[in-house]
Amino acid sequence: MTRPLRNLTIAGLLAVVLGAGFAGIAAADPAADIKFRQNNMKALGGHMGALAAMVKGARAGSPLEVRTHAYAIGWMSRVASNFFPEGSGAGETAAKPEIWSKPDDFKKVMRNFKVAAWKLELAAKEGDAGAIGAAFGDVGKSCGGCHKAFRAKKN
Amino acid sequence: MTRPLRNLTIAGLLAVVLGAGFAGIAAADPAADIKFRQNNMKALGGHMGALAAMVKGARAGSPLEVRTHAYAIGWMSRVASNFFPEGSGAGETAAKPEIWSKPDDFKKVMRNFKVAAWKLELAAKEGDAGAIGAAFGDVGKSCGGCHKAFRAKKN
Repeated sequence: MTRPLRNLTIAGLLAVVLGAGFAGIAAADPAADIKFRQNNMKALGGHMGALAAMVKGARAGSPLEVRTHAYAIGWMSRVASNFFPEGSGAGETAAKPEIWSKPDDFKKVMRNFKVAAWKLELAAKEGDAGAIGAAFGDVGKSCGGCHKAFRAKKN
Repeated sequence: MTRPLRNLTIAGLLAVVLGAGFAGIAAADPAADIKFRQNNMKALGGHMGALAAMVKGARAGSPLEVRTHAYAIGWMSRVASNFFPEGSGAGETAAKPEIWSKPDDFKKVMRNFKVAAWKLELAAKEGDAGAIGAAFGDVGKSCGGCHKAFRAKKN
């Protein structure tokens, strides 16, 4: 497993040469993109669950723990659009086609997530419990807003 | 949900007054501690899965995405010991009693995780693909080492 990212770069260059770009590569393996998205959602769910326990008082939380989860959510919010490359709606996924057919609406919910997550990061940095609770609620709403519009209901 | 962490602080102060301390609170609700630990492990698993896809080349990864996951793992490694408060071995958990009966051994695996995660953060910051791959492998080994010794096998 030495220099595995070099292969990525070579693949990327090849794709550019072929006029396909990175999105082209991604679309070539929707299953990998779906798994990648699900792993990211798993991480987000874990962080939100851990934060919820501290915000709601089920578990005592240190400022470092609150920041760990808040910062991870903040970082992830800034790459969240990348979880949804073209073509990754085909296969075993709950992602709805509207993600790609209504890009402006989708951008809006992604932006809501970024803004809410940024407020959460700031509140965690400042250690203001009230602001942390409020921002955590807003992040939760942004998750819910996106899931409601763009994630198929689980059967 | 305003100022929910203030309640935590009040609970903490009360516990100190009562001579119980935060550990006392934690032990009072092992189910919450177990859920908190499982959410943290879920987050870690998601980050590792997302990184694996990029390291192994199943999905093209940007430096920002690699850093997002590497940094989250690094932050979590520094609070990972907190996932295992006294008393949280009782209940629906795969955590083995050896975590608390062999604290020196447990500290060692936690330290392995911290060191490996720190190397991963550094490699991600520097953007060295070879170092990222190697450090990712070491983090995986540190996960495996801890799970082998301190997590009960799933039936």
